[in-house]
Amino acid sequence: MKEIEEGSSLQLDFTKLRKVAQAASPVLPVVVQDADSREVLVVAYANREALDHTLKTGVATFWSTSRNELWIKGATSGDTLQLVDVRVNCEQNSLLYLVRMVGSGVCHTRDAQGETRRTCYYRSLKEGELTFREGIK
Amino acid sequence: MKEIEEGSSLQLDFTKLRKVAQAASPVLPVVVQDADSREVLVVAYANREALDHTLKTGVATFWSTSRNELWIKGATSGDTLQLVDVRVNCEQNSLLYLVRMVGSGVCHTRDAQGETRRTCYYRSLKEGELTFREGIK
Repeated sequence: MKEIEEGSSLQLDFTKLRKVAQAASPVLPVVVQDADSREVLVVAYANREALDHTLKTGVATFWSTSRNELWIKGATSGDTLQLVDVRVNCEQNSLLYLVRMVGSGVCHTRDAQGETRRTCYYRSLKEGELTFREGIK
Repeated sequence: MKEIEEGSSLQLDFTKLRKVAQAASPVLPVVVQDADSREVLVVAYANREALDHTLKTGVATFWSTSRNELWIKGATSGDTLQLVDVRVNCEQNSLLYLVRMVGSGVCHTRDAQGETRRTCYYRSLKEGELTFREGIK
């Protein structure tokens, strides 16, 4: 079990953004939201190429800042995210992708039943501890 | 009129994340979502101090990476964001604040009627142009 992902202790990783910012290609944060349930599913990053690929194919695409390559979410599993809308914030420094899930979830983790979790935000912070929100909307 | 904020041309700012990552205090991206309408309102950044302040006061607080200080959204105007829940993603490198708005909007921009916009994501990208979503859910 990975404590970070499956534990109840808060161990925030403040190093990620610095790594993202040091990637060869400049990126924006992308909030991915389910167009129907309006659940926030994941935050990822996109460069110009990833955005262009998303618009051209209608499939949510990101930039993997660790692998320095296009990351077409679900390309291997078939669980892609079909694009419904792309929104841009006031300062044009972040994106919001509204999507429909082809598969059952976007998170790379699995719940106690072995199912892919719908959203990466499956834990709430309550009195300093992480509590699991499984089955709760 | 600020073309970036009120124009229809896409002029994405890929420099922001680098500036954020260079801030003195390490931060995480925070997605702010309306707990009732489930609209995504804004993406901001928080360091440990901002998260602690949020939890302690129940008012959504961020870290201003440009001013290097706590940024209590709406502290001046009174239009604060009351915290409903804090969620943490799988890898513990981003946060989701569910909030209720005290005022009418979170964006610093105003619509054609002079009203504060509810969300920063008031434009959709359609065929290479930004279209305003005013009045659309």
